[in-house]
Amino acid sequence: MRTHETRLRVRYAETDQMGVVYHANYLIWMEVGRVEYCRAAGVRYRDLEASGVRLAVVEVRCRYLAPARYDEEIVVKTWVAEASPRLIRFGYQIRNADSGDVLATSETRHVFLGPDMKPQKLPLEYRGLFGMGALGAPAKIP
Amino acid sequence: MRTHETRLRVRYAETDQMGVVYHANYLIWMEVGRVEYCRAAGVRYRDLEASGVRLAVVEVRCRYLAPARYDEEIVVKTWVAEASPRLIRFGYQIRNADSGDVLATSETRHVFLGPDMKPQKLPLEYRGLFGMGALGAPAKIP
Amino acid sequence: MRTHETRLRVRYAETDQMGVVYHANYLIWMEVGRVEYCRAAGVRYRDLEASGVRLAVVEVRCRYLAPARYDEEIVVKTWVAEASPRLIRFGYQIRNADSGDVLATSETRHVFLGPDMKPQKLPLEYRGLFGMGALGAPAKIP
Amino acid sequence: MRTHETRLRVRYAETDQMGVVYHANYLIWMEVGRVEYCRAAGVRYRDLEASGVRLAVVEVRCRYLAPARYDEEIVVKTWVAEASPRLIRFGYQIRNADSGDVLATSETRHVFLGPDMKPQKLPLEYRGLFGMGALGAPAKIP
Repeated sequence: MRTHETRLRVRYAETDQMGVVYHANYLIWMEVGRVEYCRAAGVRYRDLEASGVRLAVVEVRCRYLAPARYDEEIVVKTWVAEASPRLIRFGYQIRNADSGDVLATSETRHVFLGPDMKPQKLPLEYRGLFGMGALGAPAKIP
Repeated sequence: MRTHETRLRVRYAETDQMGVVYHANYLIWMEVGRVEYCRAAGVRYRDLEASGVRLAVVEVRCRYLAPARYDEEIVVKTWVAEASPRLIRFGYQIRNADSGDVLATSETRHVFLGPDMKPQKLPLEYRGLFGMGALGAPAKIP
Repeated sequence: MRTHETRLRVRYAETDQMGVVYHANYLIWMEVGRVEYCRAAGVRYRDLEASGVRLAVVEVRCRYLAPARYDEEIVVKTWVAEASPRLIRFGYQIRNADSGDVLATSETRHVFLGPDMKPQKLPLEYRGLFGMGALGAPAKIP
Repeated sequence: MRTHETRLRVRYAETDQMGVVYHANYLIWMEVGRVEYCRAAGVRYRDLEASGVRLAVVEVRCRYLAPARYDEEIVVKTWVAEASPRLIRFGYQIRNADSGDVLATSETRHVFLGPDMKPQKLPLEYRGLFGMGALGAPAKIP
């Protein structure tokens, strides 16, 4: 299973008055991880979208293990946990770059939407991106 | 089981270029639902926090069923799905106020933190708020 | 000069670790004020946009006088400070609903964009909304 | 006059349904520019804050010249436009990294707050950071 790691730094805007990162912002970091995973695999999500394919989020799960704090460097590790022509599931691990402490583990499930915003199968040309064979055989699930 | 409904209107800032509400914003709406649930039950979350008790999110799950769109009026229905002196689980249903269409169902799990940001039991005086008896008997789980 | 007041409550997500509202969020509140100003005047911004007219922000100025805090009720007072068929300027005063303390004064300047995202004149039918005569005579500037 | 440039990539979460970056997000990018300016000058803003000094925003001005779009790489150029022991003014230029097109020019004014959240003079040790002499002589204004 291929994984990709991307780094970002916690912004002041992302903190809340508890002195830690507001929990909804982890979902934005997961988006960053997902986009960079695709870029590393050779596809820019913006090109995918320009070609009429959208990845709509249908489910999010996130477990928060330790707080992220202002100005910390964060590593978002991203992988494809499951993929079929109709659905894709990404897994994520979010950790502090310096200490290595895992801050959150999470996953998102997505369906592919066409230009009409209705579910469709992922076009053949993009299946390799998510580890599917051209025939759409599901990727191995870890 | 007590439920509380609160209303909000989708802000332009909450949309993304897919023309719908960006999915992380639902977590903010869930926060609004949670806070208004507490207010309706007689406790302002800010007073709870001022007294040294914090409700830290330890898990979020959200299933997205239909998109929310700019300027729509949204109803967030909130309830306590499970409560013990150490942990509370809120359930939510997010729907379009006009059509009644359910846009998302979700839940959050929380632990109580003390002023030292370490887990502690919820003080007795607040247990009624979440449907617990003073002895901390768990609320019925629906 | 017509003014409109709308109310909102500070969300936890809008605070930062300084314990006050993060300053960029005032711009979102100004958007809320602007949209509700239009609604009160009989036009939903979403209908304006659906008809092909967009109000693009070209300048923002905001002076922060006192911090807004979590869970406070906020009043956003909005008015049209200047209007012509090519440009509109909104003024805002943001205050604490309970104390009446003014927290910020601000203004935004906008141009009208057509469906091609290029500047255009505001269609005649909408000019009354911003206090312009049908001939596009500029509104009085306070 | 020293300037510092930092880069970031537009997140999907930062776009709105107009298909461009929502204008309030430029203020967050300006914060990123400010923080990286300080880091490059040898001071982490988090250490400044930990020492009891806060930089509170008292005014923002931003002129939007061209839209920023999803996934574009953005350069935030930051400099100190004016500095005295009581007040600092930062200037910013935001541009597209690829085309070099200037997307926005802006400035923020700040006062220094002590641990009691009241205005105070910037401690001597930090004055060099903002180009002030130890005696607090104002920096040259460009």
